[in-house]
Amino acid sequence: MTAIQQYRVNLDDRSYDIHIEQGCLNQIGKALTDLFGQANRCLIISNDVVAPLYIETVQQSLEAAGWTVSKHIVPDGEKFKTIATWSDILDSLMDNKLARNEPIVALGGGVVGDMAGFAASAYRRGIPFVQVPTTVLAQVDSSVGGKTAVSHPHGKNMIGAFYQPRLVWIDPDVLQTLAPNQLRAGLAEVIKYGAIWDAEFFAYVREHSKQLHELDIEVISRVIIESCRYKAEIVMKDETEQGARALLNLGHTFGHAIESMTHYTEYLHGEAVAIGMRMAARLSEQLGYAPKGTEEAMVQALKALELPVDVPQFTAEQWLDVMGHDKKNVGSLIRYILLRDIGDAFIAEDVKDEDIQTLIQSFA
Amino acid sequence: MTAIQQYRVNLDDRSYDIHIEQGCLNQIGKALTDLFGQANRCLIISNDVVAPLYIETVQQSLEAAGWTVSKHIVPDGEKFKTIATWSDILDSLMDNKLARNEPIVALGGGVVGDMAGFAASAYRRGIPFVQVPTTVLAQVDSSVGGKTAVSHPHGKNMIGAFYQPRLVWIDPDVLQTLAPNQLRAGLAEVIKYGAIWDAEFFAYVREHSKQLHELDIEVISRVIIESCRYKAEIVMKDETEQGARALLNLGHTFGHAIESMTHYTEYLHGEAVAIGMRMAARLSEQLGYAPKGTEEAMVQALKALELPVDVPQFTAEQWLDVMGHDKKNVGSLIRYILLRDIGDAFIAEDVKDEDIQTLIQSFA
Repeated sequence: MTAIQQYRVNLDDRSYDIHIEQGCLNQIGKALTDLFGQANRCLIISNDVVAPLYIETVQQSLEAAGWTVSKHIVPDGEKFKTIATWSDILDSLMDNKLARNEPIVALGGGVVGDMAGFAASAYRRGIPFVQVPTTVLAQVDSSVGGKTAVSHPHGKNMIGAFYQPRLVWIDPDVLQTLAPNQLRAGLAEVIKYGAIWDAEFFAYVREHSKQLHELDIEVISRVIIESCRYKAEIVMKDETEQGARALLNLGHTFGHAIESMTHYTEYLHGEAVAIGMRMAARLSEQLGYAPKGTEEAMVQALKALELPVDVPQFTAEQWLDVMGHDKKNVGSLIRYILLRDIGDAFIAEDVKDEDIQTLIQSFA
Repeated sequence: MTAIQQYRVNLDDRSYDIHIEQGCLNQIGKALTDLFGQANRCLIISNDVVAPLYIETVQQSLEAAGWTVSKHIVPDGEKFKTIATWSDILDSLMDNKLARNEPIVALGGGVVGDMAGFAASAYRRGIPFVQVPTTVLAQVDSSVGGKTAVSHPHGKNMIGAFYQPRLVWIDPDVLQTLAPNQLRAGLAEVIKYGAIWDAEFFAYVREHSKQLHELDIEVISRVIIESCRYKAEIVMKDETEQGARALLNLGHTFGHAIESMTHYTEYLHGEAVAIGMRMAARLSEQLGYAPKGTEEAMVQALKALELPVDVPQFTAEQWLDVMGHDKKNVGSLIRYILLRDIGDAFIAEDVKDEDIQTLIQSFA
């Protein structure tokens, strides 16, 4: 299955295509011209790991289609996802005097896409941007849906905008150069879709872990397409996360806390989410929502994908504090995504701090 | 005319009321509770000039209605409208752990409203905010319409978002403490509405300049209401400035250049806009769009309002450079708002750099 796959995200005047095609990276120039009517200027934003591998291909494709290309390279890594790095991108946009109709091309993983998207949303109160995701995580999740952000020292992705890209351009071939831990981390978001909505897809991913790690093109393409479809469908239902979109946060409340408490140095985002999904599964059993064995099924799948499942040791107070617990409030206002079963997630508003204490102690 | 005036800005799920009432400042608490269903926490953002005068009234009103109030005070002035000041506001929001449904109350002039609004748009990708404007400029213009921003060293308001407030709460009484130059500067935006759409309103404002400077409550209330109505109507037609809303930039292309070239130290925004409107009027005559006398009518009105009309001396190259001229482009892409007559503005896409050179030289 190496044919072109295209999926439309329908959001009124913010609609756009997700295009998935092996080897399509060097077609981005024509794609942009098709989209914007005529070639003009654009700014590629990438990082210092991805740029040496792929920026020349993208630049040549754009220039061959008549585009005038500027480039801005940010340092690689979650710890540079800051207002300062974002502010540097804005300086580049100002220096290049990009006009309101001239696009940003985000070439990289989730951090690049989120920061480039937030810069696109803010520069002149909004210019177009195009996602060219180069990691599994970005291809199956973060490039679709318009959640853009930078992090704050006290919380991940706390500063940003809902701002949709004008195109998502996915070439699975670029995953060949992805570090194995990055590949694994991305698969956590894939198994998440199965855990939320589709026990069959959950089983498929688990059973094809070997092919996924070997980047079998047929399997990885199917997984990207299915994941994009799930992501697009929930975004179309609930663009700004007033309701159902919150399901995508399965494993993320705990996962963000893990990332924050370990200062973004020990776990990749997907690794933290993997541990967080295990915790959500146990909490679901603990509160009587999910049958016994739900956590075990989650653990087995995560292990098959070579993802971590051991919960790092912090006190319940530390967990609650970083998850947004506020002593001024009566009771807990933290929203957790729990499971009724693998393939059936829901939003729980009534989890008590005591329940979290019990959960944390059970992992001690 | 001291009765309550309310005007609805209809923008689908982003609709809101503009409420104009003498003495309404101490009713803000009840207004917020009516709007949000129940009192919770909020953050008042103000500056070090306005806060000593009015923050206690606002805080007491909110607390009497059951709100838990935090405060964040920014330094007064256009030169603090920066990413750094905005980032400090985000730190306050993080420190106070405001939840996604807890509002910001922006108490101040245009700078406070624009920065508070942009912070509200970005914190958790958007929390509610309420405008409580305390200057003429903010009451007649910037508090309505959802243009939020900070400035970049190389361009005013270049970084921001289209993000609508949930309420605009206007008390004309607070203008009593406004510095006379701030009052005058705000009237530039009032006369602008007349120049764009309504020659009668233009004449009314000019003829009532004495009452406006004396803050005659009947005249100032009428002027605020009419201005808000013009602003709201154009925002409803063109929320994100794809077209007609650009008319509101009459005098602003030149005005922003003046502010930038004088480093925001010599002219208040409205004063720069006044000079900019005079320049736009002369350019309109020069290009044969407007009849002779248009500039003179503009100059007379601005002088009646005690606004400056003398164009500061810079070279045409300096003007063009700061207005976004880019040597890489063939011809000019700068969009000017011109007049066919007082009360009849239009968007001109075809003004040449040479026309600007001629204009600048005519003022030498």
